[in-house]
Amino acid sequence: MKEPIRVGLIGAGQLGFWHARCLAHDIQQAELAAVVDPNEEAARRVAALAPGARWFTSPEAVLSDPSIQAVVIVSSDATHAELIEGAAQAGKDIFCEKPLATSLAEADAAIAAVASHGVKLQVGFQRRFDPAHQRAREIIAAGELGPVELAVATTRDPLEAGRPGPGGNGAIFIQTTIHDLDSLRFLTGLEVAQVYATGSYFGEGSPEEDEVDTTAVILRFQTGALATITDSRRAAYGYDVHVEVMGPKGKVQVGYEQQTDIRHFSAQGVCHDHVYQYIDRFRGAYRREMEHFIECVSRDATPEVGGADARAAQALAEAAARSLREGRPIDVPLPA
Amino acid sequence: MKEPIRVGLIGAGQLGFWHARCLAHDIQQAELAAVVDPNEEAARRVAALAPGARWFTSPEAVLSDPSIQAVVIVSSDATHAELIEGAAQAGKDIFCEKPLATSLAEADAAIAAVASHGVKLQVGFQRRFDPAHQRAREIIAAGELGPVELAVATTRDPLEAGRPGPGGNGAIFIQTTIHDLDSLRFLTGLEVAQVYATGSYFGEGSPEEDEVDTTAVILRFQTGALATITDSRRAAYGYDVHVEVMGPKGKVQVGYEQQTDIRHFSAQGVCHDHVYQYIDRFRGAYRREMEHFIECVSRDATPEVGGADARAAQALAEAAARSLREGRPIDVPLPA
Amino acid sequence: MKEPIRVGLIGAGQLGFWHARCLAHDIQQAELAAVVDPNEEAARRVAALAPGARWFTSPEAVLSDPSIQAVVIVSSDATHAELIEGAAQAGKDIFCEKPLATSLAEADAAIAAVASHGVKLQVGFQRRFDPAHQRAREIIAAGELGPVELAVATTRDPLEAGRPGPGGNGAIFIQTTIHDLDSLRFLTGLEVAQVYATGSYFGEGSPEEDEVDTTAVILRFQTGALATITDSRRAAYGYDVHVEVMGPKGKVQVGYEQQTDIRHFSAQGVCHDHVYQYIDRFRGAYRREMEHFIECVSRDATPEVGGADARAAQALAEAAARSLREGRPIDVPLPA
Amino acid sequence: MKEPIRVGLIGAGQLGFWHARCLAHDIQQAELAAVVDPNEEAARRVAALAPGARWFTSPEAVLSDPSIQAVVIVSSDATHAELIEGAAQAGKDIFCEKPLATSLAEADAAIAAVASHGVKLQVGFQRRFDPAHQRAREIIAAGELGPVELAVATTRDPLEAGRPGPGGNGAIFIQTTIHDLDSLRFLTGLEVAQVYATGSYFGEGSPEEDEVDTTAVILRFQTGALATITDSRRAAYGYDVHVEVMGPKGKVQVGYEQQTDIRHFSAQGVCHDHVYQYIDRFRGAYRREMEHFIECVSRDATPEVGGADARAAQALAEAAARSLREGRPIDVPLPA
Repeated sequence: MKEPIRVGLIGAGQLGFWHARCLAHDIQQAELAAVVDPNEEAARRVAALAPGARWFTSPEAVLSDPSIQAVVIVSSDATHAELIEGAAQAGKDIFCEKPLATSLAEADAAIAAVASHGVKLQVGFQRRFDPAHQRAREIIAAGELGPVELAVATTRDPLEAGRPGPGGNGAIFIQTTIHDLDSLRFLTGLEVAQVYATGSYFGEGSPEEDEVDTTAVILRFQTGALATITDSRRAAYGYDVHVEVMGPKGKVQVGYEQQTDIRHFSAQGVCHDHVYQYIDRFRGAYRREMEHFIECVSRDATPEVGGADARAAQALAEAAARSLREGRPIDVPLPA
Repeated sequence: MKEPIRVGLIGAGQLGFWHARCLAHDIQQAELAAVVDPNEEAARRVAALAPGARWFTSPEAVLSDPSIQAVVIVSSDATHAELIEGAAQAGKDIFCEKPLATSLAEADAAIAAVASHGVKLQVGFQRRFDPAHQRAREIIAAGELGPVELAVATTRDPLEAGRPGPGGNGAIFIQTTIHDLDSLRFLTGLEVAQVYATGSYFGEGSPEEDEVDTTAVILRFQTGALATITDSRRAAYGYDVHVEVMGPKGKVQVGYEQQTDIRHFSAQGVCHDHVYQYIDRFRGAYRREMEHFIECVSRDATPEVGGADARAAQALAEAAARSLREGRPIDVPLPA
Repeated sequence: MKEPIRVGLIGAGQLGFWHARCLAHDIQQAELAAVVDPNEEAARRVAALAPGARWFTSPEAVLSDPSIQAVVIVSSDATHAELIEGAAQAGKDIFCEKPLATSLAEADAAIAAVASHGVKLQVGFQRRFDPAHQRAREIIAAGELGPVELAVATTRDPLEAGRPGPGGNGAIFIQTTIHDLDSLRFLTGLEVAQVYATGSYFGEGSPEEDEVDTTAVILRFQTGALATITDSRRAAYGYDVHVEVMGPKGKVQVGYEQQTDIRHFSAQGVCHDHVYQYIDRFRGAYRREMEHFIECVSRDATPEVGGADARAAQALAEAAARSLREGRPIDVPLPA
Repeated sequence: MKEPIRVGLIGAGQLGFWHARCLAHDIQQAELAAVVDPNEEAARRVAALAPGARWFTSPEAVLSDPSIQAVVIVSSDATHAELIEGAAQAGKDIFCEKPLATSLAEADAAIAAVASHGVKLQVGFQRRFDPAHQRAREIIAAGELGPVELAVATTRDPLEAGRPGPGGNGAIFIQTTIHDLDSLRFLTGLEVAQVYATGSYFGEGSPEEDEVDTTAVILRFQTGALATITDSRRAAYGYDVHVEVMGPKGKVQVGYEQQTDIRHFSAQGVCHDHVYQYIDRFRGAYRREMEHFIECVSRDATPEVGGADARAAQALAEAAARSLREGRPIDVPLPA
């Protein structure tokens, strides 16, 4: 067995915890070497998952540690681009949660840094590692539906009292819709030509300018295929990701609703529970994407979902935000 | 268009009402000519479904009316055999709800009367006219499962406060289980070699001797194939008929749970309603069996489910009652 | 029993046949008196459903027959408005399949004629008579979801070889999407403020100008609630109508996929069939809407879904066509 | 963190591999110290899961190693009892796959050894650690169904070409049905009073005496509640465990059919895949039962499912085998 890849994790929130757990326990080829979080308590707690892991409240020590080969960035969105650039300069391979940056310009700078330093970059579009999404893509790629004509994607996040809104300027498109945008590119293999997006704000308090928590988007692909995306942060029943893709020979429908495989029949009808948290829906996908990253680092291979895909989805999310702002469909250039 | 078949309906309860409605409104080739029920109010109400239909509180006038060609017997079980014999003597074609009689000996007498007077007899095993059961039989008969090896049948009747128990001497087998017994013969095309049955009584009050409202039965078919049947009168959630049949190449599963095609998602989970009454589950099957009967009368054809099938299921129900009483499996002779 | 309402049916195609069947057999208070179709064979065949029904190849004889109290218009869309006006002048109560007309101006003229002659008008939005849609509306109206925030509606028509496209100028919005537009107004109780629509053509041959057979629409309601609608004429798997409506307390999801209640398990997985034709999905709803119409005529009541609702949906369909043509969202005035 | 529990695994087959994987990677408190299998290759391969794990082809070295605190026995059924006795004498805590032994007498001897040496014993009834089964038990124990009246349990194992039959003397009851027997005891909290069992052999070749691969069982509980169990080794569609339990207030139904959360709609209908292997259905349950065992060892607690439950299920399986042999229901004494 080769030496394990020593990994520094930056960001010890809920998803950071899960990535750390996978690195520490599930992925033999990885070693969780260090954990960084401005919250000392969080950093300490996550570092405790692996014997020998150190913890820090800022990333410098990790970036400057030559024994650390790769970093996993799960910090707040606004910090991603700078951390990517820093890690690239330090020669670390990089796994970064989506989005790469909060603007396309910053994303481009980060991607350029990755390229110029010759490090690897994988971005956290975990739906690509979900078996159902993968099977859907296989069916579509094999032509079993015929050419894609129409798709319907939905994402619902649980309504959480007190959770702040996504922020102004259509930030939800970068935070949430970006998953649907990537998923539709992944599933259909098509590029988007035009985006129309609108949204509303139903949360508590006054929204910022162009802050929306409920959105509807139409994509027109270059083939003329169409897709809708609806996202909401306000689902009482839990976390829900569905997508269907249709062609002239049929459709595939990905998604599920049940968490515990039991139904209760009574005079009130038939009831079952529903997946509540994203981590429950995509637990396996998060593990598989991290396995893929470590394997790419270990075997010196290129991750399947890197800067180009991240940039393409980010460009679409920005187009959606602009469409929201301008109230009209926005044409999108072909990815380079 | 030929003259419609004039039909006398005997028994104006819930199912009688439905049969009358089909005869009066749905089946062009039939004319509801008369309705008989000891309850004058019921007879009158059901007769009102068809312009010109007469009503009576006893069956003589119907049996002696030469313009009436066929009778539909939906009266209480204990009256079936005598009514069949009377109708046969009067030369009427007969549709009779299951069971033919409350004992095998009486059933044989009724069948003999039918034969000696050369009239037609169809028995009310409506599951045979349910599209899902029919499709299951087609799949099995086409060999798509391979030879049948195992089947699981379940029937649940809704729990109704104040409803009397089925009665002693294993009467539930004749009243309810007989449907499962017939359905399994229909689906598998096999004959039963041995029956083991047991049961319990959970209803209010003291049960009669060998009165059970909850049963479990094992059938061994002559090929060695096995089946279980469980029946209960005590379902809080409604009416439920399921059956699965398995062979070495796969299985079919018949049954459904939803009445209104809507699901409600909330913080309490995902809920839908459930079929509550037998009439809602088998509405179409009741209509189709009656269409089949009228068509057989009209075209002088033999109904698909007649005395032989009724007798076979009745013999199995009697064997189940005997097994309950004696606490051992009962061998069953091949139907003649 | 009152005298039955004598009805003249205009249009003897597939849906005309079903309406005729309901009038002839299911609805006691109705009498199918006459059938009109330019195709003599079709008119004759449908008239044969009722003893004594006459048939014609043009509507004059029906409109001038004083014994006929009501007409059911199921002819081609382009004839609706003129027939409504003629029937109104003749003092007949009117059931008309959607759409009322092929333009809003014509629809307004037809509605004006109905008003000035004091006859009744019901329009064929049968989804309003589907138990699942009705239950959804009840749940929403009772506030069980909280205020509506987001809805997703989908309609898929089966792909039929050789079937002509819907025609130019966004005709699909008037033909198909109008059902979703009405359904969303019915379910949410909200009025639409803005429509954005786009579409593509995937059928055989060259499309007419602005002819699309695959569409995506976003509605913004006056409350800020959003909805998407996707429609396609090209479903290989059959007919599919789904709609979900969400608020902060939950969602309802209407729709179903299975036609025969049987599943087949094999080494290839688990399979069941799918509803193929609209008539199978909405058979009961078509009957109930006609019952409602006859009851309104019989009791001199106002049909629940009349000119105002028809006009509102038509205005939205026209806005969708205009949005398709102009490539921008279209503001919609409040219905008068 | 306390020192991890050093565990010796005996039996390196498919399930042994999974247990080893959990011990090596998932359970922090455990250390996979040694692997035993007569097949050197298998032992070596499984030992490779943990750095430092040793491997052996016979268990003596493990049993005599004082640094090893616990053993996990996943070897062939016939070796269980002797290994339990040996491990108990050596003072090791024991996790043993069901069954404890191939006869009740041997099981009793093994349980006695465990008691006299004061070690812990957990038996591998993993269904008790499945969230759906656990939720069902909670619902039942809370009285939400009322007193249990009827249960239906089904287990289907995939048909595998060339797999040997279960063996004579009703061995399938000890190998497979024992899971259903334990599950029904666990879910209902009731004890069985009487067992009736029958079976057939449909496999290739000639069966041994009383060798069956397809079974049907009826249990009568001491309260009069009834249950059926059907088991088959011959499912073309995969692995399937379902159970429903009913009382006068409703029922719970545990089980699921889908492996990948995707459905494929085409002109052939709607299809999805099915769980194929037991390991896929109960992966989490296997991990949780092992976590429970390690935690009990670590905290000096008594495992929730130990010798008494194992003995009770084994006694029922023996009664089933006897019922098969003698063709009559067998009364079962209350567990001591």
